[in-house]
Amino acid sequence: MTDTSRVLRFAVNVTPKPGILDPQGRAVEGSLGHLGIDGVRDVRVGRRVELTVEAADAEAGRAIVERLAAELLSNPLIEAYAIESLGDGVPGEPPR
Amino acid sequence: MTDTSRVLRFAVNVTPKPGILDPQGRAVEGSLGHLGIDGVRDVRVGRRVELTVEAADAEAGRAIVERLAAELLSNPLIEAYAIESLGDGVPGEPPR
Repeated sequence: MTDTSRVLRFAVNVTPKPGILDPQGRAVEGSLGHLGIDGVRDVRVGRRVELTVEAADAEAGRAIVERLAAELLSNPLIEAYAIESLGDGVPGEPPR
Repeated sequence: MTDTSRVLRFAVNVTPKPGILDPQGRAVEGSLGHLGIDGVRDVRVGRRVELTVEAADAEAGRAIVERLAAELLSNPLIEAYAIESLGDGVPGEPPR
């Protein structure tokens, strides 16, 4: 780390695109009856990846995460992703 | 749906607790070098579940999601969860 770099925490939310089959979501919906839970529908199951980036500034950090999300963390044919800034966090903090 | 019920969209973010082994996170970190990405660390891979709840009000909707998150979507021994309100959304909208 240089004196001017920043340590930032980001999350990447990866979800199946609309219209793409989501067997995990169907499995959750199938279990709702056993739990006696009513009124829940349209369940979609994706991934959440949280990571720390060290970069010159927030914009540079987000650019790195953008590349990672597009090239490694998601399959662009069937999945959408959204990047969320978690601030100057350190890992291991309780989720918001 | 009754005249007074609300249709709400929530997300549940499930992440491995600090100290719990996360092989998927290690795999991502192991791939960073191949992509030529520097400065990324402390990668944690979890799940993101998005769902629609129909309930009397936002508080009742969150209570249903809370139960679902604790009893079905996470393993409390090794995972933490956080509930996020996505508003009066409809499913299939692009992620924020």
